[in-house]
Amino acid sequence: MKEYEFNVRVRYSETDQMGVVYHGNYAQYFEMGRVEWLRNLGISYKWMEESGIMLPVVSLNINYKKPARYDDLLTVRTIFKSQTSVKIEFDYEIYNEKMELLTIASSTLVFVDMKTSRPTVPPEYINEKLAAI
Amino acid sequence: MKEYEFNVRVRYSETDQMGVVYHGNYAQYFEMGRVEWLRNLGISYKWMEESGIMLPVVSLNINYKKPARYDDLLTVRTIFKSQTSVKIEFDYEIYNEKMELLTIASSTLVFVDMKTSRPTVPPEYINEKLAAI
Amino acid sequence: MKEYEFNVRVRYSETDQMGVVYHGNYAQYFEMGRVEWLRNLGISYKWMEESGIMLPVVSLNINYKKPARYDDLLTVRTIFKSQTSVKIEFDYEIYNEKMELLTIASSTLVFVDMKTSRPTVPPEYINEKLAAI
Amino acid sequence: MKEYEFNVRVRYSETDQMGVVYHGNYAQYFEMGRVEWLRNLGISYKWMEESGIMLPVVSLNINYKKPARYDDLLTVRTIFKSQTSVKIEFDYEIYNEKMELLTIASSTLVFVDMKTSRPTVPPEYINEKLAAI
Repeated sequence: MKEYEFNVRVRYSETDQMGVVYHGNYAQYFEMGRVEWLRNLGISYKWMEESGIMLPVVSLNINYKKPARYDDLLTVRTIFKSQTSVKIEFDYEIYNEKMELLTIASSTLVFVDMKTSRPTVPPEYINEKLAAI
Repeated sequence: MKEYEFNVRVRYSETDQMGVVYHGNYAQYFEMGRVEWLRNLGISYKWMEESGIMLPVVSLNINYKKPARYDDLLTVRTIFKSQTSVKIEFDYEIYNEKMELLTIASSTLVFVDMKTSRPTVPPEYINEKLAAI
Repeated sequence: MKEYEFNVRVRYSETDQMGVVYHGNYAQYFEMGRVEWLRNLGISYKWMEESGIMLPVVSLNINYKKPARYDDLLTVRTIFKSQTSVKIEFDYEIYNEKMELLTIASSTLVFVDMKTSRPTVPPEYINEKLAAI
Repeated sequence: MKEYEFNVRVRYSETDQMGVVYHGNYAQYFEMGRVEWLRNLGISYKWMEESGIMLPVVSLNINYKKPARYDDLLTVRTIFKSQTSVKIEFDYEIYNEKMELLTIASSTLVFVDMKTSRPTVPPEYINEKLAAI
């Protein structure tokens, strides 16, 4: 599946004195989006990291259109864009309960071998899942 | 002055289990960079907000080149790029103590009237300071 | 109902380089516990604040027994302890999926009138709900 | 030296929609207080952890008296209380620029051997420093 949606409720701690979600906190929502997208595909990011492959973010672009507010039940749509060799790219859209589009974003991540700290092609079990999308 | 540098020491709470600064936390460093750049120019962001003008981030782009680590004393270089009508743009560079370039970023912010929640041209005392750069 | 349980999955951003949830982040879990306890009682904290009553934390005590880890699905048990005049007290227990007790905590909060910034008795609709527990 | 003071400026991201520092964020200030107290004693927490000893927090008690606000330059006073076998205890006081006492807190930490994940007596070089206080 190319897309996956999940919901997250805005925490009080995520707001700032503008009365909206602090702009830096969206990175957490996108991360949760990716992790749930992977889980839906049958991949546990936790297990992947335990087995020696991590997936750090190398670039992140965010456009803020409307603010998210305390207690909003957000929908985070994670969209798999591409995967080539060591890189994987995602787009993201965040909606509030009225399905207003609040934020769009994209990020690039790289598969890294934790032993060598070098980029690496994803393991076979991941390649198979990604190829089947 | 177009550029301003200030130092920030990486907190334990800012790291994640990769052993590096969590990628979402850089937004805080850039924000601190802007605030100190403004302060250096004679503008208090706190005071500006109290007087009814806020400056939310509308876009943020970050490229992560090398990780920042716990207890690193980072240098955040904030570079004023442009200001046109309601918008202001900044670039950022983050260096570690060895002066390795860790991260580059850019952001666009918009002056907003807190009473109307609408974009607004910056007040005269800010325009004067910005024009003099 | 005196007690209320809800689940929260540990985010990557909540871990630190010890490989466990950063100890300061538990305050967020307790806050979410209180908010969901209130919601279950028919009280929206968001709405309460919009109507002019806020509920700041005046003391917080936490005992950390075992660490919570990335991707753990935690159970936060919020226990209403007492409410007298302006004060309300809660206990908390956090469990992991094996139902190991990870953390116990307690906090005291005070109803505050946002107009006067002074402690205030809770509004009648809240008193009724609390009295019925 | 039993006590150590250092300053930290409140970040925008640390505020919440009450317009004050989110209560959970104080844990970061206390942590920074301990680390600077240790550094002042000639001990690098970073280095200590790299050499295999970590110092997790096992209990934390905080009393919030007055709120800290955005851009406040806080003074964090860290007070060494006791050290016995594997445990070390600190008190903390946080003041604003008017030297109003905002927050008092205490925490207990335990020296842990990272290889065994078991409590351990501090290494000799730390014991010597602590004994000399």
